[in-house]
Amino acid sequence: MLNITYPIFQAPMAGGITTPELISETSNCGGLGNLGAGYMDPKEIKEAIKQIRSLTDKPFGVNLFIPNVREVHFDEKELTAMTVLLNQYGQELGIEVPVSNQVNNYKALYENQLEEVLRERVPVASFTFGIPDREVMTELRKNGTVIIGTATNVKEALELEVSGVDIIVAQGSEAGGHRGTFHEEASGLVGSMALIPQVADAVYTPIVAAGGIMDTRGIAAAMALGATGVQLGTAFLTCKESGAAEIYKKTLLNSTEEQTTFTKAFSGKLARGIGNRFIHEMAEQTSLPFPLQNDLTASIRKKAAMLKQPDFMSLWAGQGVRMVKETTVKQLMRELIEGK
Amino acid sequence: MLNITYPIFQAPMAGGITTPELISETSNCGGLGNLGAGYMDPKEIKEAIKQIRSLTDKPFGVNLFIPNVREVHFDEKELTAMTVLLNQYGQELGIEVPVSNQVNNYKALYENQLEEVLRERVPVASFTFGIPDREVMTELRKNGTVIIGTATNVKEALELEVSGVDIIVAQGSEAGGHRGTFHEEASGLVGSMALIPQVADAVYTPIVAAGGIMDTRGIAAAMALGATGVQLGTAFLTCKESGAAEIYKKTLLNSTEEQTTFTKAFSGKLARGIGNRFIHEMAEQTSLPFPLQNDLTASIRKKAAMLKQPDFMSLWAGQGVRMVKETTVKQLMRELIEGK
Repeated sequence: MLNITYPIFQAPMAGGITTPELISETSNCGGLGNLGAGYMDPKEIKEAIKQIRSLTDKPFGVNLFIPNVREVHFDEKELTAMTVLLNQYGQELGIEVPVSNQVNNYKALYENQLEEVLRERVPVASFTFGIPDREVMTELRKNGTVIIGTATNVKEALELEVSGVDIIVAQGSEAGGHRGTFHEEASGLVGSMALIPQVADAVYTPIVAAGGIMDTRGIAAAMALGATGVQLGTAFLTCKESGAAEIYKKTLLNSTEEQTTFTKAFSGKLARGIGNRFIHEMAEQTSLPFPLQNDLTASIRKKAAMLKQPDFMSLWAGQGVRMVKETTVKQLMRELIEGK
Repeated sequence: MLNITYPIFQAPMAGGITTPELISETSNCGGLGNLGAGYMDPKEIKEAIKQIRSLTDKPFGVNLFIPNVREVHFDEKELTAMTVLLNQYGQELGIEVPVSNQVNNYKALYENQLEEVLRERVPVASFTFGIPDREVMTELRKNGTVIIGTATNVKEALELEVSGVDIIVAQGSEAGGHRGTFHEEASGLVGSMALIPQVADAVYTPIVAAGGIMDTRGIAAAMALGATGVQLGTAFLTCKESGAAEIYKKTLLNSTEEQTTFTKAFSGKLARGIGNRFIHEMAEQTSLPFPLQNDLTASIRKKAAMLKQPDFMSLWAGQGVRMVKETTVKQLMRELIEGK
């Protein structure tokens, strides 16, 4: 279906991680590289796709975030309180966190992203945080684009199957970064060992397992549980080709499984990363809804990365983080395919 | 080492689940039955072992809880508030929850349990919530007892290895019932897909994987990840031979993975079970420490079970609960060994 040699996906991590080099090299090695385009504007997507295509003639994917259909509700008082709070960190970093009650219009962004994805006739389009509309799926299908949805429990997988997606990524609770959950948050925290077979029992659609998979052992386990393919994020983060900041890579190389934790402090949506000062200090605070909280913390995360200050960066990582290595895509893919 | 045919352990679930029939039948089928003796007094343990031995000449295990070395601290006010709160449920059930500031002396209980285990020269002794003392291990070893510890992250596994246990159960976050964690609670919530290979990389001791394993797929996955054996709890709960109340079995047979949730409301220690009214309503309350909270809720749980009222029972279950079947130990073991 995908015209790839090995059913190994490089996860579409957002925020500049999935460089054209990371994606193209994964695809050139026989896997499927994926662009984490959730926060990217159409021009950036267009440029990234152009670069990917200049580096590979193999298939690749583009991932988009389905925007919340509901309006993002928040209280002016909460917004002010959060801005004051964040400005304490801003002060430490020498920036002012702007008081913004303008939620970026993610619905319009998504529609523009989609247009670009359709225009570019990408080989694979994957979606997180929901199910694309029937019309969108029809248009993508006309282009021959393979459509991937993300589920974190059986109910979501069944809904994706009914919607007609071609592949379902089953994201176990071990996974780093945002939970793909589009139903109640607490319903989407199932470990891969339990999630994969239960999804496999429930749907006919091929399953790609994600969450905690780091090497051939994880791949064999996922296949035994009923997956047809695997998606790895954390293992690709420390590749030379990844766009992760050096300090982020260095932190991952020195982190252990129990240091990862769930937080909503960076974006307003539950995500797993390495616990740091920001996460710990914000643990008692109620974050504003996604994506408003994400917009509010953007300047802090950006400045912290510039200053190589991991205390205020979103260091997304899965629970398999102890197994990361300083490597290249070629070396990683070789190990994933041939074993050590 | 264990003199068993298949490396399949029936988990030592406490609270009357692990009947002599469940244990002996598991061992007779070539696995290892385990008595959940954490809350049992020495006389009960003696009687259970006698019955097990009358039903099998195969090896079996006895599991004990390592008591917290620290005193159980609590505030009189908190105790009163919790008793008032619990009495609201007591009233619904037609019982009075006694105001008890007498924490059962679990340290003395443990020592008496140990004496019994030593006297009975049991084939296998397993421990949860900590590491047995060196002297205890020496005495057990003199008896030829195989010693098993429980770890929920790499750090705990390394400490167990140093202590000299023979086998380490690696309990993934998918597991039902209490977390075996003996370090910081939040450090012990690693999914099996990530936990098993990282523990396998860190220790030489054989690993038995627990958490989310329900059938041959889970067994194959655990082995691929680096485990030497597997331990299943939830899958055994719905066996005819299990001591689980009929209403508990019935609830499990109708539950799904996303209905399981972590709670401290029943015992004061984090455990995974089917979410019910008690868990949901108590979610905002701070429980008293284990085992005081457990003692306080005992009468409620007992009466609820008598009344077949699942809203107030501790319905421990793992995230693989959608895969449970109404079965017998013989049938389950056959499926685990031979596949469906």
